[in-house]
Amino acid sequence: MARWLVILAGGRGERFWPLSRMMHPKQFLTLMGDRSMIRSTRDRVRPLIDPDHTWVVTGQDYVQKVRGNLPDVPSDHILGEPVGRNTAPSIAWAAAQIQRVDPNGTVLVLPSDHMIQQEARFRQLVVDAMNAAETHGGFYTFGIVPTHPETGYGYIEHDGMAFDEYNILTVRRFIEKPPLEDAEDMVASGQYFWNSGMFVFKVGEFMESVERYLPELYRGLTALVAEPEHLDEIFPELPQVSIDHGIMERASNVYVLPAEIGWDDVGTFAALARHLPRNDEQNAAKGHAIFVESQNVTAISEGPVVSFIGVKDLFVVATKDAVLILSPERSQDVRKVVQALKEAQHNHLL
Amino acid sequence: MARWLVILAGGRGERFWPLSRMMHPKQFLTLMGDRSMIRSTRDRVRPLIDPDHTWVVTGQDYVQKVRGNLPDVPSDHILGEPVGRNTAPSIAWAAAQIQRVDPNGTVLVLPSDHMIQQEARFRQLVVDAMNAAETHGGFYTFGIVPTHPETGYGYIEHDGMAFDEYNILTVRRFIEKPPLEDAEDMVASGQYFWNSGMFVFKVGEFMESVERYLPELYRGLTALVAEPEHLDEIFPELPQVSIDHGIMERASNVYVLPAEIGWDDVGTFAALARHLPRNDEQNAAKGHAIFVESQNVTAISEGPVVSFIGVKDLFVVATKDAVLILSPERSQDVRKVVQALKEAQHNHLL
Repeated sequence: MARWLVILAGGRGERFWPLSRMMHPKQFLTLMGDRSMIRSTRDRVRPLIDPDHTWVVTGQDYVQKVRGNLPDVPSDHILGEPVGRNTAPSIAWAAAQIQRVDPNGTVLVLPSDHMIQQEARFRQLVVDAMNAAETHGGFYTFGIVPTHPETGYGYIEHDGMAFDEYNILTVRRFIEKPPLEDAEDMVASGQYFWNSGMFVFKVGEFMESVERYLPELYRGLTALVAEPEHLDEIFPELPQVSIDHGIMERASNVYVLPAEIGWDDVGTFAALARHLPRNDEQNAAKGHAIFVESQNVTAISEGPVVSFIGVKDLFVVATKDAVLILSPERSQDVRKVVQALKEAQHNHLL
Repeated sequence: MARWLVILAGGRGERFWPLSRMMHPKQFLTLMGDRSMIRSTRDRVRPLIDPDHTWVVTGQDYVQKVRGNLPDVPSDHILGEPVGRNTAPSIAWAAAQIQRVDPNGTVLVLPSDHMIQQEARFRQLVVDAMNAAETHGGFYTFGIVPTHPETGYGYIEHDGMAFDEYNILTVRRFIEKPPLEDAEDMVASGQYFWNSGMFVFKVGEFMESVERYLPELYRGLTALVAEPEHLDEIFPELPQVSIDHGIMERASNVYVLPAEIGWDDVGTFAALARHLPRNDEQNAAKGHAIFVESQNVTAISEGPVVSFIGVKDLFVVATKDAVLILSPERSQDVRKVVQALKEAQHNHLL
């Protein structure tokens, strides 16, 4: 009866182009500090769960990159999906592997591309959730206290205290990415958290829920475990469903731990810019930059020196083969450039 | 009695950094069209003067680059200066070489980093100047009709018609880079031209003037021609003086041909930007650029794709190892970045 970590690393995000590329998505970027996002995710809970008990689910194209980022995770613990089928199949695939060797194990599921500033506090919450799961059973989520009516996240509504000893609340319902008005109401009410996509559960209980709520997925996984050599035929046929929608919204014993842990999904360049230190003229740089009489400029360079003369309110990302220059409030629109490159068939830049 | 071309290619300008570098100055850049500035300079007068009659004076470090740009110019016609000593020593060195083989030759001197749009008209003026020099003797300059009170150029004041048959005027005086007020007066008067730095003269007459007005230079050159193996000792000791100041301002028979030839010294990125075609949103690109909801942006790239989202009024220059982003009216300040790189000893970027 051990504790296990499952890291979800299937993202193919385009919001960080040109830093991120089709073959080098966000989870492998070093956006903060000196380690990739996926490496930071693993290292953050390494005091709790060792590499032998770590599994990673990623795209087939990224298996080698995951190995490079997490060299001490056993090679056969890195599962490569032929296609992405959302989070329920990913988690269930890893859970089925864990169940075979440790049917009573407890599992922590983490996305691979988030930032958490208060790591010790986060680890304490993980320990609380795992202890509660092992004592009481159930599904545990980590609820981020919202700071603004974000429409890009899912929300979790709580329904009062579940386990006094851990400050764990009962979940009433999950809400998918809401319209702005609903988000404003939810933030004002104080009854809602952001859904961070992190989960804790006992592996047996999870697999029972898959069997009950997602029987088609369960049958597919059973076939996959029996005949792993048929991965390329079986996996694409699995139902495409999220763990939130497929399991969490249907199970009755779902809980949330209020998590004030300095969480940020760093989903856009603007989010990244908030975390960079600024000089007196409000300029910030990651990489080599020179600011001459410029203000409120953020420069991120993977190599080229980026120089500014007499400009303000800019966000610049530079690599050897692509430079992106945008107004700071336009970081959601990076995909428009990626789209233009796709249309022009400049695939070497994607 | 042939006609000769001397190209001055000693410039080490920093105003086009990061396109120009210490080892790759402006005369070797392809700022317009598909040929380097020096190659365009030569090709423009190739119908008049063939490569065997062409000489180039450049820095020792640039001799190989000149050969690469002008492969059909005889190798020993490319003179490499150990140090720059301004234009009089450069021109006199080439003139001394020409005089040895063709004492009655006529010489056209051209800087290597200017743009001339009306090439046929320019060639006609060169022919006029050479004919006049061969008939009447004297020193011939090409006066650009000023379009604005530029303080970065020298001016030439004329004194009425010299040779009716060629529309050639007598020069009264040369004026070095003037204060703005003087420049405004000169442009308003209609008596002044910009000095384009191009000259025509008979080589014997020029060398006599060097002997008369710049005897120290003449003695040095005589020594250099006698003992070319002592270049590194002799050349640095030559007097540092411009042809304008050393010869033209002192000679009595100096003439100017009014030259409406679409001349531009393309001295800054702003000057370059004026010559690029613009789209409906006033964006212009040389190299691969993508504009998304952006206006009045100029992009020059030597390789990286440069993308813009929601920005306006910018000038961007991108190379593999350096990106420069400036406000369009700040192109005189590029040296500030070069200076900062020097101070930080980032010599590989200079």
